[in-house]
Amino acid sequence: MDIKEQEFVKEIPSKKDFFSEWYTAVVLKAEMADYSPIRGCMVIRPYGFAIWENIQQRLDMRFKATGHRNAYFPLFIPESYLRKEAEHVEGFAPQVAWVTRGGDEDLTEKLVVRPTSEAIICSMYAKWIRSYRDLPVLVNQWCNVVRWEKSTRLFLRTTEFLWQEGHTAHRSREEGEEETLRMLNVYRDFVENDLAIPVRWGRKTEKEKFAGALHTYAIEALMPDGQALQAGTSHNLGQHFARAFNIKFLDSDNQEKYVWQTSWGVSTRIIGALIMTHGDDRGLALPPIIAPVQVVIVPIVYKEKEEVLKRAIKLRDALTGKFRVELDDRDEYKPGWKFNEWEMRGVPLRIEIGMKDIEKGEVTLVPRISGKKFAIKEDALEQEISRCLEELQKSFYEKAKKYLDANTFPIRNMKEFRDALKEKKGFYRITWCGNEECAEKIADETGTTPRCISLEEKEEGICMGCGEKGSQVVYYARAY
Amino acid sequence: MDIKEQEFVKEIPSKKDFFSEWYTAVVLKAEMADYSPIRGCMVIRPYGFAIWENIQQRLDMRFKATGHRNAYFPLFIPESYLRKEAEHVEGFAPQVAWVTRGGDEDLTEKLVVRPTSEAIICSMYAKWIRSYRDLPVLVNQWCNVVRWEKSTRLFLRTTEFLWQEGHTAHRSREEGEEETLRMLNVYRDFVENDLAIPVRWGRKTEKEKFAGALHTYAIEALMPDGQALQAGTSHNLGQHFARAFNIKFLDSDNQEKYVWQTSWGVSTRIIGALIMTHGDDRGLALPPIIAPVQVVIVPIVYKEKEEVLKRAIKLRDALTGKFRVELDDRDEYKPGWKFNEWEMRGVPLRIEIGMKDIEKGEVTLVPRISGKKFAIKEDALEQEISRCLEELQKSFYEKAKKYLDANTFPIRNMKEFRDALKEKKGFYRITWCGNEECAEKIADETGTTPRCISLEEKEEGICMGCGEKGSQVVYYARAY
Repeated sequence: MDIKEQEFVKEIPSKKDFFSEWYTAVVLKAEMADYSPIRGCMVIRPYGFAIWENIQQRLDMRFKATGHRNAYFPLFIPESYLRKEAEHVEGFAPQVAWVTRGGDEDLTEKLVVRPTSEAIICSMYAKWIRSYRDLPVLVNQWCNVVRWEKSTRLFLRTTEFLWQEGHTAHRSREEGEEETLRMLNVYRDFVENDLAIPVRWGRKTEKEKFAGALHTYAIEALMPDGQALQAGTSHNLGQHFARAFNIKFLDSDNQEKYVWQTSWGVSTRIIGALIMTHGDDRGLALPPIIAPVQVVIVPIVYKEKEEVLKRAIKLRDALTGKFRVELDDRDEYKPGWKFNEWEMRGVPLRIEIGMKDIEKGEVTLVPRISGKKFAIKEDALEQEISRCLEELQKSFYEKAKKYLDANTFPIRNMKEFRDALKEKKGFYRITWCGNEECAEKIADETGTTPRCISLEEKEEGICMGCGEKGSQVVYYARAY
Repeated sequence: MDIKEQEFVKEIPSKKDFFSEWYTAVVLKAEMADYSPIRGCMVIRPYGFAIWENIQQRLDMRFKATGHRNAYFPLFIPESYLRKEAEHVEGFAPQVAWVTRGGDEDLTEKLVVRPTSEAIICSMYAKWIRSYRDLPVLVNQWCNVVRWEKSTRLFLRTTEFLWQEGHTAHRSREEGEEETLRMLNVYRDFVENDLAIPVRWGRKTEKEKFAGALHTYAIEALMPDGQALQAGTSHNLGQHFARAFNIKFLDSDNQEKYVWQTSWGVSTRIIGALIMTHGDDRGLALPPIIAPVQVVIVPIVYKEKEEVLKRAIKLRDALTGKFRVELDDRDEYKPGWKFNEWEMRGVPLRIEIGMKDIEKGEVTLVPRISGKKFAIKEDALEQEISRCLEELQKSFYEKAKKYLDANTFPIRNMKEFRDALKEKKGFYRITWCGNEECAEKIADETGTTPRCISLEEKEEGICMGCGEKGSQVVYYARAY
């Protein structure tokens, strides 16, 4: 390792000891994002945006496979529309940006920059939906939203962020609930399989639900600092917005009825979870499915530059279209420096090719996580890369799953909870009677929040709030 | 034709006689877009948005093939940043939306909702660019922008619209100019080959150029009402913004220099051009490359419903993945009604399949433009569809090209111009000496504007402004 190489690595603080500084350093150094001159707004740089493009592609594929279509609704929402649903306005009004002037005139009605689009979308659904034949309406929108945040962090909490928001309308309560859970499962499938981030999932308590929803479901990931991060939400809106916006349809029984609605979203925040979950002291580490560059080829050139480079180009061309591959043929950097840079950028697999390899008809493969080099015959390369990327994807997930499980603590009473809070950070798994007051009491006394009420687990236990019987399993945690 | 069918068609006004009404009716009835409760903002409905998705995909492919990467910059621009480039602020300040309040506080500095992103992007480039090794910077952004328009029309002019804006920085004036022209050609290639809209292209006069640019190039299409529509622009920004935002690099000769920049954009407005160029009295007509649905299968069912439907599903499954295909198996509508609806939605090719076809081992093909039915053996279908779509794509272009050429009028003097204005609408092709005052004088006297100064054509003629020699060819027109 030469000096330049060492310095390069030294610039990233230890993930274990300085987690917050580590995170910011990785985001900035890997050129994922940068601060902007507007308070709380970030710039997503090309490398970070390439990840978002992959996320979009992988999610959009799933949305379309489940019958959804994309559309685009206005950025602005008239104040009176935001006010139509009482809980909704109460939840969002304190944190919106206001447009009060357009061109050279003061507006007669102030406009809100959308913090979420229920209000504007519902006003259109009221116009479009007439008959049961128009249902279900299955629409998604990819867009920017703005929430005026007091304290912000790159990707995790920014005044403006990018997301998708699905908005659907259905004929019955059952169909609405089915859709809400379908999309929760789509999110879980995407986050676990593509981002390799294992999650807990379930329903939110009344206090934690979306402003205006009947109830909210969420997937929750566990970050290396022991805090939970809400990675996606799916809301059953019931008929709350339908009543507020008068979205009715004529059913086959000739009765006018309100529609049943859902909304669901995943945002650029998920990129923060991706960075925190998989990165290490050398920088980013990206699961192959989502990595902008899956394979980087670094030619090891000394004397026989021409020949090695020619071979490297041939290799790149052969792999292009099968993998997302890049050849680093920059003259001004040494191989060691390039290794470090691509590791810092989290590229899952490196190919080294030098004269020695060429003579043996081989190339050297180096996975980002293990760092262990191994030689592969050139004619087996494509197959070996496929196998290696698949295996890496699995091992990313397994490592994170092991961490999640190891940091989920069963808690039976308040004393255990208090003790655990001192020593262990993670998910605190408790039983609960179902009473909202109990849920809040536990939260207040522990400084944590109920992240989700499990949909699958039941357990005969004692409610930690009231001491009565409680059979519902709730995961508490400190949260982002 | 049954009564329902006739009524359905009657709802669209004649394109020839009521062009403006025809346009609005087609946009609304084909469910491309709708009005929103916010002044001048439209909703892009799923069918319209699917076209935008295809446009994005076809353009993005070309941007990436020419080395560009996507990124995302903030929606808001501090007022002081907009003011840094003098011409820029003068051009845009009168038509922006102002955010003056965030959360519960009045902002100390007002924010502009981006009308275009030069100001914010340049401030980041000043931070990122250090050395000639960082150049060129080739970045594009897909986003929404807002311009406070006084009068608006669906797709053509809306307060908020979607677009892409490329922003590049280069080492030399030559490289900047090269990039500006490269992207003009990318636009021309895309619009002519994918949208089948032939264009005139060239440089803008000083008065018509982008606020802050050194000069602007544009592609200009001719609409059926004889008005020109600017379909894409590419700006050579010179060092105007580099000086205003202090974007400098250390060159290899150890000198600090300002970068040379470009910016270029295409917006959802192009969908308006697509509709106007190809539509007819039956509604939309979409070139195959850009059509959300390329082939629709309509089963002709009477008695043998089961068997026909089974065959239609088999057909759909066989064609899926090769074409964008849809099967209309709705029970509640008759075939005739479906034919009309899919024609109105502009689907290039219809397949009809009924018992008679099945008995003969055939299907019936009906291209949207000609409406002429012809039978094809099932085993030749895939090949025949490919051939047919290719041919259709060409014929869309050829028809529009014929119109463009037939409505471009060579004009030698002001009298000819005035006479032409009375009888003929289209492009008025004149010669010009290169003096800006002459260009403006011609515009003022004719009520037209110079759309572009040809880059390829030269002609020994007389300048229509001053009567002196003029060898530059300029296309004038009334414009959207």
